[in-house]
Amino acid sequence: MPRDGIVPFHSEASQVTITTMSDTSAKFDQLAIVGVGLIGGSIALAAKRSGAAQRVIGFGRNQERLNAALSTQVIDDVATSPEQLAQAQLIIVCTPVDRIAGDVLQALAATQATGSLITDVGSVKGRILDDVQAQSKEHRFVGAHPLAGSHRSGFEYATADLFRSRLCLVTPETGRENSTETKRITAFWQQIGMRVHLMSAEEHDRILALTSHLPHLAASVIAGLVPPEYLGFAATGYRDTTRVAAGDPELWSAILSLNAPAMIDGIDEMITLLQQYREQILSGKQQGLVSLLEKARQNRKQYLDDLIHPDDGT
Amino acid sequence: MPRDGIVPFHSEASQVTITTMSDTSAKFDQLAIVGVGLIGGSIALAAKRSGAAQRVIGFGRNQERLNAALSTQVIDDVATSPEQLAQAQLIIVCTPVDRIAGDVLQALAATQATGSLITDVGSVKGRILDDVQAQSKEHRFVGAHPLAGSHRSGFEYATADLFRSRLCLVTPETGRENSTETKRITAFWQQIGMRVHLMSAEEHDRILALTSHLPHLAASVIAGLVPPEYLGFAATGYRDTTRVAAGDPELWSAILSLNAPAMIDGIDEMITLLQQYREQILSGKQQGLVSLLEKARQNRKQYLDDLIHPDDGT
Repeated sequence: MPRDGIVPFHSEASQVTITTMSDTSAKFDQLAIVGVGLIGGSIALAAKRSGAAQRVIGFGRNQERLNAALSTQVIDDVATSPEQLAQAQLIIVCTPVDRIAGDVLQALAATQATGSLITDVGSVKGRILDDVQAQSKEHRFVGAHPLAGSHRSGFEYATADLFRSRLCLVTPETGRENSTETKRITAFWQQIGMRVHLMSAEEHDRILALTSHLPHLAASVIAGLVPPEYLGFAATGYRDTTRVAAGDPELWSAILSLNAPAMIDGIDEMITLLQQYREQILSGKQQGLVSLLEKARQNRKQYLDDLIHPDDGT
Repeated sequence: MPRDGIVPFHSEASQVTITTMSDTSAKFDQLAIVGVGLIGGSIALAAKRSGAAQRVIGFGRNQERLNAALSTQVIDDVATSPEQLAQAQLIIVCTPVDRIAGDVLQALAATQATGSLITDVGSVKGRILDDVQAQSKEHRFVGAHPLAGSHRSGFEYATADLFRSRLCLVTPETGRENSTETKRITAFWQQIGMRVHLMSAEEHDRILALTSHLPHLAASVIAGLVPPEYLGFAATGYRDTTRVAAGDPELWSAILSLNAPAMIDGIDEMITLLQQYREQILSGKQQGLVSLLEKARQNRKQYLDDLIHPDDGT
């Protein structure tokens, strides 16, 4: 994958639109972050450092946490009501994935007069877009998913470097890949140092189901299967395969549920492949089994060969 | 899990016999290693350093490799025919898992006059024991599985420290848990620094199916499922969950096949659990999904809490 700002997609089946870096302005006087945690806080810091924003306003449910973020200068001001979001030309919704659609609709309503742009950072894109479109005919919301993160949470761990050279998947509505809104939001993510890749929300969800959500499910299935009294005999294979099963159940339950259509397909593919392994093991002939394992090994090798950032978050 | 030489097993369902460190001799004048790779070479070095053996003879298919191991002093002598194994009072078979039963039978035949003891290091125990018993009425073979390893292979990477404080599962025939052969072989593994745990071959295979072989299969299933053109979007979740899928397909095909009965049960349990996740995702209610993920998270947490050696091999 090339290292420049815009990333082509190699799948012929892909519906991706490739944009080129334009002179579209990525500078906003005021940026609002809804949900100032690790991701929201890091965006705030990166936006100011890169000049993408002059000033960042924080908004959220927990006033005490917002004041703490203010006092450590992660944000420059605190909004106490949604109406104050209208001060910002760009609003980025960084709340838990199952609250994003509601928060986007709230932001759209609060900014009808000013026409502010809105983007988000959710790990699932289709359902959020559907829920927003079901209640709004506007096109000011263009979803995004920056592929960066940390096992830590909270603005205390925010860093302006979290996004540097990482991939951001921007998912405009079909037909609006070249709209001004898409261009300005793409330019913002590039301005804070990300490589931007455009794709439809549906394609995003199909890809992430396989590259992130299904691996998480597999890890949880294995972790759920091994009886606690066997764990003393578990070694590195168990350790690595189940690592992500340590993730927050509420967060992952929301992700898996919101991405239901692609997850159901993924689970079905996984069961089909498990049944192929089962048949080959029962057959007693090793050649079929070697072929299945070899294909997996090749894919895994390809992943390492393609790798730019071994520490990319999910 | 306690850190002393003998490890109690906490499962009430377990058929484990707990031995105590006895004055059974763990010293052998001559030790033979069949298959001098990373594991066999490391046993050779550990046996000499600990005084468990005075002298180590290497035996194997590749004379050139054996001579190289001799010249680097991993072994002290090379046997060129199986008959020479009779010089050794203890023979340890360290060949690939699907060759072990044949090599044990060859060693039993070569040492009928001397009555040498034989053990092995295979990752599957039931099938090896069955194959040996089908052709031999002797009780000089007591299987073992030292839980230590490396992603490297070859005697060049052998180290006397590979086994220090790691767990060795010793799997005597039913009813022979307190035999002299079991005691002497247990004493050998302890002498080179391992914590020994006795269990039946069947129990070993059931446990390892869940703690090692099924995690490997899950990793390979996920790695096999993600199309190569999606890999540029994969992050740490994919990376860790699929790490072991990079393993040698021939080796793992042999392990999965030899452990067929326990693997089939494990695959069926995995499919059942996947179907539960599928149902919960389809239901749209998050509570059931949270419960499944929470149970997995608790088990995974338990594993970390129990952990003594984060780098234990498989």
